[in-house]
Amino acid sequence: MSSASRYTYLGPEGTFTEAALRTLPESATRELVPMVSVAAALDAVRTGEAGGALVPIENSVEGGITTTLDELAFGAPLMIYREVLLPIAFALLVRPGTKLSDVKTVTGHPAAQVQVRQWLTKHLPDAAWESAASNADGARLVQESRYDGAFAGEFAAPTYGLEPLATEIHDASNATTRFVLVGRPGRLAAPTGADKTSAVFWLRDDHPGALLDLLQEFAIRGVNLMRIESRPTGEGLGQYCFSVDAEGHLTDRRVGETLLGLHRRCLKVRLLGSYPRADEIAPVVRRGASDEEFSAAADWLNRALDGRV
Amino acid sequence: MSSASRYTYLGPEGTFTEAALRTLPESATRELVPMVSVAAALDAVRTGEAGGALVPIENSVEGGITTTLDELAFGAPLMIYREVLLPIAFALLVRPGTKLSDVKTVTGHPAAQVQVRQWLTKHLPDAAWESAASNADGARLVQESRYDGAFAGEFAAPTYGLEPLATEIHDASNATTRFVLVGRPGRLAAPTGADKTSAVFWLRDDHPGALLDLLQEFAIRGVNLMRIESRPTGEGLGQYCFSVDAEGHLTDRRVGETLLGLHRRCLKVRLLGSYPRADEIAPVVRRGASDEEFSAAADWLNRALDGRV
Amino acid sequence: MSSASRYTYLGPEGTFTEAALRTLPESATRELVPMVSVAAALDAVRTGEAGGALVPIENSVEGGITTTLDELAFGAPLMIYREVLLPIAFALLVRPGTKLSDVKTVTGHPAAQVQVRQWLTKHLPDAAWESAASNADGARLVQESRYDGAFAGEFAAPTYGLEPLATEIHDASNATTRFVLVGRPGRLAAPTGADKTSAVFWLRDDHPGALLDLLQEFAIRGVNLMRIESRPTGEGLGQYCFSVDAEGHLTDRRVGETLLGLHRRCLKVRLLGSYPRADEIAPVVRRGASDEEFSAAADWLNRALDGRV
Amino acid sequence: MSSASRYTYLGPEGTFTEAALRTLPESATRELVPMVSVAAALDAVRTGEAGGALVPIENSVEGGITTTLDELAFGAPLMIYREVLLPIAFALLVRPGTKLSDVKTVTGHPAAQVQVRQWLTKHLPDAAWESAASNADGARLVQESRYDGAFAGEFAAPTYGLEPLATEIHDASNATTRFVLVGRPGRLAAPTGADKTSAVFWLRDDHPGALLDLLQEFAIRGVNLMRIESRPTGEGLGQYCFSVDAEGHLTDRRVGETLLGLHRRCLKVRLLGSYPRADEIAPVVRRGASDEEFSAAADWLNRALDGRV
Repeated sequence: MSSASRYTYLGPEGTFTEAALRTLPESATRELVPMVSVAAALDAVRTGEAGGALVPIENSVEGGITTTLDELAFGAPLMIYREVLLPIAFALLVRPGTKLSDVKTVTGHPAAQVQVRQWLTKHLPDAAWESAASNADGARLVQESRYDGAFAGEFAAPTYGLEPLATEIHDASNATTRFVLVGRPGRLAAPTGADKTSAVFWLRDDHPGALLDLLQEFAIRGVNLMRIESRPTGEGLGQYCFSVDAEGHLTDRRVGETLLGLHRRCLKVRLLGSYPRADEIAPVVRRGASDEEFSAAADWLNRALDGRV
Repeated sequence: MSSASRYTYLGPEGTFTEAALRTLPESATRELVPMVSVAAALDAVRTGEAGGALVPIENSVEGGITTTLDELAFGAPLMIYREVLLPIAFALLVRPGTKLSDVKTVTGHPAAQVQVRQWLTKHLPDAAWESAASNADGARLVQESRYDGAFAGEFAAPTYGLEPLATEIHDASNATTRFVLVGRPGRLAAPTGADKTSAVFWLRDDHPGALLDLLQEFAIRGVNLMRIESRPTGEGLGQYCFSVDAEGHLTDRRVGETLLGLHRRCLKVRLLGSYPRADEIAPVVRRGASDEEFSAAADWLNRALDGRV
Repeated sequence: MSSASRYTYLGPEGTFTEAALRTLPESATRELVPMVSVAAALDAVRTGEAGGALVPIENSVEGGITTTLDELAFGAPLMIYREVLLPIAFALLVRPGTKLSDVKTVTGHPAAQVQVRQWLTKHLPDAAWESAASNADGARLVQESRYDGAFAGEFAAPTYGLEPLATEIHDASNATTRFVLVGRPGRLAAPTGADKTSAVFWLRDDHPGALLDLLQEFAIRGVNLMRIESRPTGEGLGQYCFSVDAEGHLTDRRVGETLLGLHRRCLKVRLLGSYPRADEIAPVVRRGASDEEFSAAADWLNRALDGRV
Repeated sequence: MSSASRYTYLGPEGTFTEAALRTLPESATRELVPMVSVAAALDAVRTGEAGGALVPIENSVEGGITTTLDELAFGAPLMIYREVLLPIAFALLVRPGTKLSDVKTVTGHPAAQVQVRQWLTKHLPDAAWESAASNADGARLVQESRYDGAFAGEFAAPTYGLEPLATEIHDASNATTRFVLVGRPGRLAAPTGADKTSAVFWLRDDHPGALLDLLQEFAIRGVNLMRIESRPTGEGLGQYCFSVDAEGHLTDRRVGETLLGLHRRCLKVRLLGSYPRADEIAPVVRRGASDEEFSAAADWLNRALDGRV
């Protein structure tokens, strides 16, 4: 199998990332390789060992996954070609035969603890929690009998020879994690009519209204921002870059012109890609922001330059 | 002489408009025809009887010349190709032999009265003022002995057989009138590096922030507004269009993109032309607003669309 | 009768200004004195000879009445206490017995000519027009048999012994003139719930976005602008002040805070008054802009300063 | 010792947080209690067991400390009274007698790994890294001989009977962590002239320009934003609140009015406090934004309401 047909992902096996990756039809024909870190998964793409990598980028409860954001912003360039949304619900995985009353110690990733806290208070108030490096790692530790139960995705049970004792455990009713399929820079994913464009921009200088000015570049052209996160540039407190997702595809003229505006006013802009929205929601395009209106305006200007007003 | 070589102007002979027109080198080779009104001067261009018309558009004391603004905004389309700035100073013109102590009655255009009021209070406190239809008309009435003195441009004296008794009379120290040379729509005047673009725009709807949004179109692209005037559209109180002058030529990319933005968001935009600034002051172009930066951004976007990020 | 009970107005008798003044109930108990100019009408108030003056400030066809705007902006301070809206329609006034076919010469104020042009083309295509100093003056000239017909308000007919030969003549279907009742500075008119606040502001400096910044002061607090006009300050081309009407009363907290913001950022602000809207339309107050929300926020801040968060 | 004189901090002993806490003069007279987590440190304040807690809030390399941000935004209200900036530099701590060539395994907090990576590549290219729960925990594991070296603050050496083999190790030249001293809500820290105000705001609705509008509330009043971070509200992807630091004290009128504006336009605002800036840099107050100008404007408005214009 060629490296192009290999997809890495944030492992180990049995994590939500693997479950997210398996929702992509193409995953059936790819070699799926778990990696120990987001950086490792992405580096395999950078070196050409893999054709793509699926990594988490945002969680509706925890926020942006800073490792991913920083790798995409500061590492060797990569681009996003797809996104996957996965509702996050946990199962309590135990060795076969274990009853709820047998569970004295539980484990899972620290992020899981927030999600299952209420369930624990109600059903296992006396259970002791210890954190594991990942949810899947927790499952492995239960397999090795070091804990009685692990909170992980229900899909992880067979991998570790465990059984779900309870499922659909979560706190916030709509906890969702967003994953992105990342590849080496290349042609953008084709526009579908329901797309998203991601980019990172560095303010050229630190004048107070700089962020405001850049948000105006979006607003004036009718481009909605879906996500904005500040990340430190590593050059001292108060020095930020901004990672954003905007509605629309770079080939939508309102989006293209906005990115041009950012490029002119920013120290640096890094395009992270235009790709289909997982929720398939087409944007409501404001009056004056459609491609047709951009074309009509361009025609008008061309005529005007010749005095045909 | 062909009609193209005929220039009309707001008459009669001897007005400041004629003086302004004569500052244009080409006036030496044109037939200069005074007209009774701005509308008449412009209509002669519209019908093809004249190749151009010089009319006042703005005065630093009186403000916009509404007839001219409205003719350009609402009448059959015309375009501005040149502008002339003329400092306004009056002379008191009298019949030869008249002494200051002989002057009991004076005349002039109502706009002149504001300018000469202080001078009159000081030098001719008892003189009676009556308004004339134009400064030149006032001179004619003095020629006909209907008044003793007329306030007009010193240059009007020979035309009416008069003599200046006092010159350089004005109130506000830098009273200036701006005139525009108007022609039928055609190719824009070539860019000189110190240009001005004039346009009229009609707000698409009456939402409170509509004007603010449109000013943002200029600001976000680093285009300075030099003049903005609201004019009623005639469709009821509170219904305005806006007549503006912006720094730069329509072929400057920041100006072109601004006009495109206006066109998309406005009910209507009428381009009135791009033409050399009479003051020959080149604009200070803000960082990110130069043609070079527009080109660099476009190159970046083209590369980005191919994944060369 | 005391001077306080005397109201001046832009005369002569029989003008639309007088008709507007007579729509005010209090006019029945005032001595109404026509003056030869807006300046004269206002000066009578300044000197104490009159308690109020009614002058036109804006016309839906002609735009702002610059004399009035400039007197209020630059003259000794006065304040607006009321406004009157008067639909403008002309009558053709003739001496009794005159038939339409007898009318060879017509007169009226130049502003009337625009309004009646279409009617003339249709009904009196061969009539010669000459301008008069005012519509009422035109009527007087007809009375003196110097013209055959005068365009003026129908109400002017009895004053000059004339008869209307045609009425309701106008071009733009809803031509309206707005008049203001001006007095010496004093307590604002009481808020009615449907008010308007007028002010003039001078930009502190000439930085390109200065006007934009000031419009933001209104927008951010949910105060709608109803009118904005630039007026030259007389200090050279490109030097403007802005005359505005905003929705709401100065005692509405959103309006008061906006004016405070203008005062801090402008070279100068002159308040022209808060007064009832003639159209009695109460504003739709945006969420977050009501007095209740201002109070709630102030309460919150006071608690916060004490740590009661 | 009363609970008020007890300060908790993010433990264990020997972490940078303890070092930061010890820079506060008052720490000399307080009982300093390490806690296992930010939540535990803050909960001790909430329950009254401690009078204050020092926790990290932001790192110039890693970004916002999300646990702290979320505890302050979503947990029972607390307020910030002080901040501490601590330059972050690591020492390689070893058991006495260990030579560099003896070091085969090293440990430390994952965040430390980023900082020491370059140093490791150069000086210990073959050393194996394993992560510890905290830098101090890593030191303890070296004390227990489970690793040969730990990267931690030099100040941690005596606590664990270790010696620094190398010091001042860091990647980004100016890596700094910012800590805040948090207490129960109460009177704000007194203004010093160089202060900072922290708050969290929830957008009232999800209209595209909502963030832009709120940044305008700051900009229009001349209040500079020093930090802005979006945090998910837990109600689904795309639902954010914003945690900000603004220049100035809540008793500065420009800051107070800005917070009032936010309160009116936001679903919710939580004040996190006004407190002295650790860098003691006094803000440059823009023209029109000083307390004096706020007072002058208020005086003007009061006079205007009485007609003294």
